Amino acid sequence: MFKKEGGSVGDVKYMELALQIASATKGQTSPNPVVGAVVVKNGQIVGIGTHLQAGEEHAEVHALRMAGKKAKGSTLYVTLEPCNHVGKTGRCTDLIVENKVTRVVVAMTDPNPLVAGSGITRLRNAGVRVDVGLLEKQARDLNEVFCHFITTNEPFVTLKQAVTLDGKIATASRDSKWITCEEARHDVHDLRHTHDAILVGVNTVIQDNPYLTARIIPEQKQPIRIVLDTTLRTPVESHIVQDKKAPTWIFVGYHASRERIEEIESYGVRVFQLQTKTIYIEDVVCVLGEQRVASLLVEGGQQINMGFLQAKKVNKVITYIAPKIIGGIDSLSSFGGSGVERMMDAYSFQFTSIEQIGTDIKVVTIPKFAKGDHSSCLQG
Amino acid sequence: MFKKEGGSVGDVKYMELALQIASATKGQTSPNPVVGAVVVKNGQIVGIGTHLQAGEEHAEVHALRMAGKKAKGSTLYVTLEPCNHVGKTGRCTDLIVENKVTRVVVAMTDPNPLVAGSGITRLRNAGVRVDVGLLEKQARDLNEVFCHFITTNEPFVTLKQAVTLDGKIATASRDSKWITCEEARHDVHDLRHTHDAILVGVNTVIQDNPYLTARIIPEQKQPIRIVLDTTLRTPVESHIVQDKKAPTWIFVGYHASRERIEEIESYGVRVFQLQTKTIYIEDVVCVLGEQRVASLLVEGGQQINMGFLQAKKVNKVITYIAPKIIGGIDSLSSFGGSGVERMMDAYSFQFTSIEQIGTDIKVVTIPKFAKGDHSSCLQG
Repeated sequence: MFKKEGGSVGDVKYMELALQIASATKGQTSPNPVVGAVVVKNGQIVGIGTHLQAGEEHAEVHALRMAGKKAKGSTLYVTLEPCNHVGKTGRCTDLIVENKVTRVVVAMTDPNPLVAGSGITRLRNAGVRVDVGLLEKQARDLNEVFCHFITTNEPFVTLKQAVTLDGKIATASRDSKWITCEEARHDVHDLRHTHDAILVGVNTVIQDNPYLTARIIPEQKQPIRIVLDTTLRTPVESHIVQDKKAPTWIFVGYHASRERIEEIESYGVRVFQLQTKTIYIEDVVCVLGEQRVASLLVEGGQQINMGFLQAKKVNKVITYIAPKIIGGIDSLSSFGGSGVERMMDAYSFQFTSIEQIGTDIKVVTIPKFAKGDHSSCLQG
Repeated sequence: MFKKEGGSVGDVKYMELALQIASATKGQTSPNPVVGAVVVKNGQIVGIGTHLQAGEEHAEVHALRMAGKKAKGSTLYVTLEPCNHVGKTGRCTDLIVENKVTRVVVAMTDPNPLVAGSGITRLRNAGVRVDVGLLEKQARDLNEVFCHFITTNEPFVTLKQAVTLDGKIATASRDSKWITCEEARHDVHDLRHTHDAILVGVNTVIQDNPYLTARIIPEQKQPIRIVLDTTLRTPVESHIVQDKKAPTWIFVGYHASRERIEEIESYGVRVFQLQTKTIYIEDVVCVLGEQRVASLLVEGGQQINMGFLQAKKVNKVITYIAPKIIGGIDSLSSFGGSGVERMMDAYSFQFTSIEQIGTDIKVVTIPKFAKGDHSSCLQG
């Protein structure tokens, strides 16, 4: 075992490479984790591999294939514990043993509590030296979505807000174009690319008629567009119903009319009718987990944002702050509802990063309240 | 003349020292600038000086006195153009010439348009070599308050806000204790120390009964406490009326009652009665300039903040952001009033610094709109 950031200079270098390789496929492996592998023999890299897509071969398979006969007597650096179950592909542990790899360095164990550690045990029983925990924090951060999803069966929820310096998302006349600079809006499209789904409220659809697509690299996988719409007011003419550029799912309440549902469905939209009058965020998150949505980007108005917060279904908040002040008692803030009564009851977060993007700043915070979240995953 | 950041390594080193010396007295020289001076001869520092307080000797006087006979043939580094007028102290230009200083390196010319450059001209006419502009930006930033005050005769206004991540300053029930962490609140006391005056609205006095003192180093000069209070509702029992820990000034409108004014004045409070029914920020700022208040820290509620913004009497906004969300349609935002109608009409700023303070972040922005501000001073 490594003590925290331990490991030789060489070990660190190769594991950093494996992490870089892993991060390259972020956004395309869901609901699987991103994984990178590097095979080293006599101080030379003899194989590299990455997991490209769910259902396809694991990183170790690619890396060992590239290494070929050189795999014998080598060290394998892999960002996640090798699998020990016969899934869509063979057992990686078997492959490692067959290839006579001498040593395996693992950044983190499998966060799935049902399998965690069994791959390592199998390798050790087969006489392979296994060192675990090198650059573990980086590996966990890289797979925060997977860690959360595999332990909770719910999507990792990132709430994105774009606000002025006085915390506003629109003027009293509901004008919101544009709060942030072009670079920040570009960054949001990047964010969309790395998520399985984007969620908004029906008011956003009615007011802005957005496309909700990621438009930086149009040929990349598009996230599912999800609308919370209790009484199914989404207009048939909306871009998200008509354009077929990405799947559209609409969550409706018990009282939504059957005719409207059938009409909307005739355009290829999936409608999820809940068994409650209003829509509970807990239920939405649960259904999305069942549908294998591992990451969700909430781009709501103030009602949706507050709903996710009150349900404590927020794993990260990304705030873009523009250096503008609009003022106004009737201008819109980013979180609505009734709010907390006392300041000491505020929903509490911690800053994890702050960076300048164009003329704006981007601030990332993670909640201190979420169960089965980032931090509980970190203890896994 | 130096081209921007020009100058030899030695020149830069000595001017940096002079700037450090100058910055040490920030907050105690108002309405004068902070100034630092370093005398160097044959590669050795032979004198240093700083301006301690308005009415006392200039930095050059202290530095040349320390140098004594070694001043002859030396180079004097000074952060601001030496004075050329007989004020409370003698002319620094005369002193430099008398001491036979060979060369003077000046970071910036005097921003006062009436005197700018005359000190330099006099020195050159007396045969002294003068180089101007080394580390000029740093020198101007250090004296942003003085630059603004001397060119506009109005205080440099810093607006401070402490907000949650959703831009709120209080819950719907008006609870605001505490938004920010202890380190951030400590930082606010430091801010107060460097300002001539602090300004709040009467609602803050009535609701919070604050002391509005700088409590880090209690024996330091306390800023004047200023209250905007149209109808003179400040309670006689308020700390700011009773405690005598710092001067208190109250601005009232034309209709404030004579009896109330006399009552409040009997506690040693100064009352400024304006000739208008309501209080105009422009008039307040004008009176404060006449009273030689060079720097003002606005710690208002949403009405005061918006008043200063609408009057465009804001030179800097310091925002402390706590990683908390309180939500709520009726919770209080930092800027009130009617706000702008369209996002494109937002008051526009630019970020100048972002830092983490305890668990919060501190964001500094300067406006793009202010006349006679920071940026116009920079052109001086």
